[in-house]
Amino acid sequence: MEFSSKLLERAVNEMSQLPGIGKRTALRLVLHLLRQPKEQTVMLSEALKRMRQDVKFCKSCHNISDVDLCEICASSNRNESVVCVVEDVRDVMAIENTSSFKGLYHVLGGKISPMDGIGPHDLNIESLVKKIKQGEIKELIFALSSTMEGDTTNFYIYKQIQDCKVYTTTIARGIAVGDELEYADEVTLGRSIVNRIPFENSLKS
Amino acid sequence: MEFSSKLLERAVNEMSQLPGIGKRTALRLVLHLLRQPKEQTVMLSEALKRMRQDVKFCKSCHNISDVDLCEICASSNRNESVVCVVEDVRDVMAIENTSSFKGLYHVLGGKISPMDGIGPHDLNIESLVKKIKQGEIKELIFALSSTMEGDTTNFYIYKQIQDCKVYTTTIARGIAVGDELEYADEVTLGRSIVNRIPFENSLKS
Repeated sequence: MEFSSKLLERAVNEMSQLPGIGKRTALRLVLHLLRQPKEQTVMLSEALKRMRQDVKFCKSCHNISDVDLCEICASSNRNESVVCVVEDVRDVMAIENTSSFKGLYHVLGGKISPMDGIGPHDLNIESLVKKIKQGEIKELIFALSSTMEGDTTNFYIYKQIQDCKVYTTTIARGIAVGDELEYADEVTLGRSIVNRIPFENSLKS
Repeated sequence: MEFSSKLLERAVNEMSQLPGIGKRTALRLVLHLLRQPKEQTVMLSEALKRMRQDVKFCKSCHNISDVDLCEICASSNRNESVVCVVEDVRDVMAIENTSSFKGLYHVLGGKISPMDGIGPHDLNIESLVKKIKQGEIKELIFALSSTMEGDTTNFYIYKQIQDCKVYTTTIARGIAVGDELEYADEVTLGRSIVNRIPFENSLKS
């Protein structure tokens, strides 16, 4: 791609570093900014820079936060003896949206994935194990993706805390609400039968 | 969407102002930036801001440029008597890529589109008409999209310069190279028959 302006070229190149944004899309976005008032670009630019420079991670759960201890960890309305282990910030947001969890979180920052060069020491596992060894936590809920990497990460953590007195659970795997049985994959369907629950329980939610 | 950080929320909101980028995609992009070195965000942020503040439009053809007169207009190797009218900067880049045009361009900055509130005075039409009335241009090539808006814009300009001694042409519409006849739409196929060219001409390129 030949650009008539170095400034344009640099902006397009930087923009196309983002995942899923190719050169053509980047050019479309940058030309859109050129048609909008200057303020929009300045605000976008400032928001990104300030976010990257000033954002903090909660010292307890590693969730993104503006202060040292995030709102959830600092809240007195949460049950501190239940901790839900999630992969990243988006999972916290997704679970918070359901309003069905009142414990605390622990954000790992990823999954163990040797293929991508991510080992246990690249994740926030050590601080989780330390927290559990202090003995204040009664239940640990694994809420990672149901993939090989997710399962590996669950198992790695489980091995580390095996000797601790903590009840470990994992979120239920089964047929999604609203889904038709015939389209479900067999592993999920099989698990949903093995892990069946009393019918009365399903009436609660 | 509930955010745990105002900085994150602001960055996501600004990012999702871009066309085709929703809140979820914006969050994914912003979280990606958080995982990368700080320098990447700073460079992106600076590149966007500088581009928006310092980029110029060529005073002759309105193409994006770093200087007052763009490279193409300033070049001595181009035929100044042929001008190709295009919608935006991307079209200049696309035609330049083909290396089959050695004249100058005129970038309108859009098409006449009453539905989107874009009238003739929002586009760089006046300066084009003025250029043509000076009598230096021998051929004007319309290279707008073959849509109703494109055709309207062509016709509007054509009416303005009807009395000038300028030969107006439009790029050929026809079956794309490599396309199969049976899948072509009938309007295109019909036009390609009406506007057929001597077979010898097709051997040249």
